[in-house]
Amino acid sequence: MDNDLILLGHGSGGVLSHKLLSDLVIPALSGTPLAGQDDAAVLELNGQRLAFTTDSYVVDPIFFPGGHIGTLAVNGTVNDLAMVGARPLFLSCGLIIEEGFSRADLARIVDGMRSAADAAGVRIVTGDTKVVPRGKADKIFINTAGIGVCDQGVVLSGSNARPGDKIIVSGTIGDHGIAVMASREGLQLSTEIRSDCAALNGLVAELLAVGKDGVRVLRDPTRGGVATTLKEIALQSDVTLTLDEAALPLDQAVKGVCAILGLDPLYVANEGKLLALVAPELAEAVLDRMRRHPLGRDAAVIGEVTAGGSGRVQIRTAVGGLRGVEMLAGEQLPRIC
Amino acid sequence: MDNDLILLGHGSGGVLSHKLLSDLVIPALSGTPLAGQDDAAVLELNGQRLAFTTDSYVVDPIFFPGGHIGTLAVNGTVNDLAMVGARPLFLSCGLIIEEGFSRADLARIVDGMRSAADAAGVRIVTGDTKVVPRGKADKIFINTAGIGVCDQGVVLSGSNARPGDKIIVSGTIGDHGIAVMASREGLQLSTEIRSDCAALNGLVAELLAVGKDGVRVLRDPTRGGVATTLKEIALQSDVTLTLDEAALPLDQAVKGVCAILGLDPLYVANEGKLLALVAPELAEAVLDRMRRHPLGRDAAVIGEVTAGGSGRVQIRTAVGGLRGVEMLAGEQLPRIC
Repeated sequence: MDNDLILLGHGSGGVLSHKLLSDLVIPALSGTPLAGQDDAAVLELNGQRLAFTTDSYVVDPIFFPGGHIGTLAVNGTVNDLAMVGARPLFLSCGLIIEEGFSRADLARIVDGMRSAADAAGVRIVTGDTKVVPRGKADKIFINTAGIGVCDQGVVLSGSNARPGDKIIVSGTIGDHGIAVMASREGLQLSTEIRSDCAALNGLVAELLAVGKDGVRVLRDPTRGGVATTLKEIALQSDVTLTLDEAALPLDQAVKGVCAILGLDPLYVANEGKLLALVAPELAEAVLDRMRRHPLGRDAAVIGEVTAGGSGRVQIRTAVGGLRGVEMLAGEQLPRIC
Repeated sequence: MDNDLILLGHGSGGVLSHKLLSDLVIPALSGTPLAGQDDAAVLELNGQRLAFTTDSYVVDPIFFPGGHIGTLAVNGTVNDLAMVGARPLFLSCGLIIEEGFSRADLARIVDGMRSAADAAGVRIVTGDTKVVPRGKADKIFINTAGIGVCDQGVVLSGSNARPGDKIIVSGTIGDHGIAVMASREGLQLSTEIRSDCAALNGLVAELLAVGKDGVRVLRDPTRGGVATTLKEIALQSDVTLTLDEAALPLDQAVKGVCAILGLDPLYVANEGKLLALVAPELAEAVLDRMRRHPLGRDAAVIGEVTAGGSGRVQIRTAVGGLRGVEMLAGEQLPRIC
């Protein structure tokens, strides 16, 4: 019976992932029912608020235009810390390597991790290396965990969205997922599509400098894409989010690949973009500040929050209709991160 | 050329692991030459000393007498924190699951993680789940990272051993490695050998209560066993360690399997034992206290520290000879943790 086995879709970040986590993993591990799920846990420790998070990276291929599994592992975990408003400080690095893996590739990966860590201002302070026999893993898997410190007055959570808030995205959507997919499938494109893989903590600092109180939610739309992430926020905050399709920043090459392959960019993973839900009076100032940052040049207001709806997300299409947006069902692009 | 590829032995915890880490991984990740390597990093954070560590678990089989990959993942990381004198507080949990894995087995594993966390007094506060296609991983791999707090006055490191210190082991050696190996190979034994998998933070608290200053080094001898761990300490502290073979606590069944298979229990992994190097005047009191703890009942003084020798470890055999002890070369028992 399918129900007895773990499926690829259970790792998608979408509906099946949520069900597996809420039905089985989280109640077992935490002993509490599924609470609001943010990108990192925020812990009180002797009067200090620490953020703590982890992610494993199993991307295929391990090298792709714009990054590799190592830069992804550093930036992804830095971003999860930044999304709860923490200053990322320390990372761990757990390598699981398949026997026969190239030493040169390993060197390239760890060098890239170091450069990414330097760029993000974090230090990789502890690690572990395991090797499994040939055929028991696929080249290399990397886990990073991260610790950050939350400054006073910064409280961000997916449950903080309020009616009237504006929804801002920091740039074009779907670049990472399409870059990895094109690389994996060997698509011949006239324009190379590059992953947006980048550390967002600098951009977050800019954004918070505009006004801590008015920034309600930050989230990086990775697995499951913008649609799934917004659906999570809508559910956590019990509000309705309405997107304006025409406002979504989209690279022309990414748009083209999505159209040909029948993929909806709203569900494609990003690794260097954030969604910010901010108070309406702050929206213009935040947008302005983001656009002056290299990682926020294409930032745009893409929608707004209204009351009620019990977690509804909808999109106003180019022709003026409204359609509902659900979480990713099944698995659209496996092993994208 | 072999030198260009990662070998199983690079994950052994022995010579090849050390070489890979010191030649390639650590300089790249940290930007500094190989420093003294303790089980966890100790970090200063606003006047507080935090310990931070990570380990990935790839044990085969995933269930074995005395534990499973989940209990191992919790206890192993708790122990790495305890070995630097930290009180373990928070864990992360990163699951990499092979498509088609049994949901019932996953439930059993996460339930076991929860029980182990409860027993150790730690909370699993953040996690991640990835699923890879069938054949791209071997059932399930688990990474845990952990955060602990170091109390004032507790400074433990492999580099603190001093001439005259006594070497204490908390119990019988080699149980975990032999239990996993016997289970993997389906050995029919008259007495079941069980892994010693357990959280040692309670035992460490007892031991430190005897006298913080006199406890110089704590280490849990996992991959590479007691021999490799003592060699690391000898090198870090630049001293000679001399073991008394007759004093090594050894379960009769484990001894029997080792004799038949030609394995040296000194190199076999433990998952619920610690080595303590303590000032001579404290040794009796520490031993006494440890023996009153369920996890230290078979504790014994197994050797002592002398000056010089540049990291020499030697063992006084039953017939009175002295032989040198080196780190594990190659891979004796792969995928033991």
